[in-house]
Amino acid sequence: MDTITKEEIANWFKGLQDTICNSLESLDGKAKFKEDKWDRPEGGGGRTRVIKQGNLIEKGGVNFSAVSGPTPEKILQALKLDKADFFATGVSIVLHPQNPWVPIIHMNVRYFEMSNGTWWFGGGIDLTPHYVIPEKAKNFHQHLKDTCDKHSPALYPKFKSWADDYFYVKHRNETRGIGGIFFDRLSDADGKTKSDQWKFVQDVGETFIPAYTDAVKGLNEKLWSDTDKDWQKIRRGRYVEFNLVHDKGTKFGLDTNGRTESILMSLPPEANWEYDHQPTTELQKQTLKALKKGIDWVK
Amino acid sequence: MDTITKEEIANWFKGLQDTICNSLESLDGKAKFKEDKWDRPEGGGGRTRVIKQGNLIEKGGVNFSAVSGPTPEKILQALKLDKADFFATGVSIVLHPQNPWVPIIHMNVRYFEMSNGTWWFGGGIDLTPHYVIPEKAKNFHQHLKDTCDKHSPALYPKFKSWADDYFYVKHRNETRGIGGIFFDRLSDADGKTKSDQWKFVQDVGETFIPAYTDAVKGLNEKLWSDTDKDWQKIRRGRYVEFNLVHDKGTKFGLDTNGRTESILMSLPPEANWEYDHQPTTELQKQTLKALKKGIDWVK
Repeated sequence: MDTITKEEIANWFKGLQDTICNSLESLDGKAKFKEDKWDRPEGGGGRTRVIKQGNLIEKGGVNFSAVSGPTPEKILQALKLDKADFFATGVSIVLHPQNPWVPIIHMNVRYFEMSNGTWWFGGGIDLTPHYVIPEKAKNFHQHLKDTCDKHSPALYPKFKSWADDYFYVKHRNETRGIGGIFFDRLSDADGKTKSDQWKFVQDVGETFIPAYTDAVKGLNEKLWSDTDKDWQKIRRGRYVEFNLVHDKGTKFGLDTNGRTESILMSLPPEANWEYDHQPTTELQKQTLKALKKGIDWVK
Repeated sequence: MDTITKEEIANWFKGLQDTICNSLESLDGKAKFKEDKWDRPEGGGGRTRVIKQGNLIEKGGVNFSAVSGPTPEKILQALKLDKADFFATGVSIVLHPQNPWVPIIHMNVRYFEMSNGTWWFGGGIDLTPHYVIPEKAKNFHQHLKDTCDKHSPALYPKFKSWADDYFYVKHRNETRGIGGIFFDRLSDADGKTKSDQWKFVQDVGETFIPAYTDAVKGLNEKLWSDTDKDWQKIRRGRYVEFNLVHDKGTKFGLDTNGRTESILMSLPPEANWEYDHQPTTELQKQTLKALKKGIDWVK
């Protein structure tokens, strides 16, 4: 069982990308993904798929990549290694909706291994509503908890709290959204085998569509005002701030000469910065209050 | 002559802020600056002045600050010092125009000293046109060269090249705009006294209004199309990328718990990210070709 190869993992991720793209096209009902296949000079490549101007999604990307070659210097330093080859594969998703009532969603599932035998999985799913609606937030976290609980009751609290810490915009003293789960360096410690971890990561990947389908249900039909749209643009600005200032994946990708257009597909359409913008409605104020660490949404 | 005090420097910078704000209000003809005075808990404070929705300026800031207290850990580490108090004062400007034909401009002049006697000046002015117009670029650089040449013919080439290197968006392989001048750590080396350096920095500060006035002349009257506006939003996105990913001042400010709204006043209104955006007109293509290091604009 523990002879899972990197090829099997990459192939499964490819299939996940296909399934998710098909489901999102159905959900959107209008726009279709366009694919860019690319090669990495040092080894491997990817399939970047983007969708825009849909009924639901204004701009989104569902990317698969499987890259390999000499391990970037920054990772070698962090791991105190002299030299090693690496292989990394994963699926990354960011969807920015047209309608301010619909949340932004992000998912990443990934696998990393090195020629010295080191390997780990990482990933997570998190939601960034422009307006936080508590019952929606609860439902979203319940999806993630259910997936985690199938593996161990210890996982959801740990990975939920990890997401709170990770998706934190320090200079704004607010979380990016209502969080979700985040995990990294899942390896064969704590009595877990590689196939245990792989099964968990697969389950996370398969949670994306049901969790997102529920998260958008009934919201894309809601009418929105100019005030709502302005607020969405401000919140998108905060999303940019997190991704460019704090997100380790973005930073690592840009630092190591990754494919810029694939990395920055996460950035939103039509963002806006206003000096010292203040919330003008009760819902905006409530939303800011909900962008805090440690809120137990599923209780 | 070399008994210039930090109070004199800060007061002169305050006066520069006043002069520049008055001149910009005249130039704009419609919008007025609004001021936020703020205190820094650890010492000092500032006057953040912002202007918006003008005839010329869609969003801009002209900030003065003079802050003091224990030197932030990051600076102590860089200077290999155990402990010292610091004082820093300066004026920072970023102006985003309404009209895509009008360039974005940035200026910073600053002074820094520490209780151990170390002191230096830094600063610069640079221009980010959405559309690069060679005669305008030449004129802008000529202003900066004239100011530098009053002090030494060696300054402009050195500080121009420093700006090329500093205002570089590595992950896009393009410069932020057409550059200008950038300098840091100007102290009493190379036969220069403190009053020499101070005079130079004052001259740079006083170059801002004439250089900007020329840079916008005849451009705000130009009609623009939807294509021009879309392009402006894409270029503003790149401006955000530079400021949040690469700009050392922004990074330092956010890292050391600076006043976020004052630091991020540099971010534009209405920015946009499109996946793999390509230039659609000859002028857009020419502009991208001009966003390179080492172009000798004044030749």
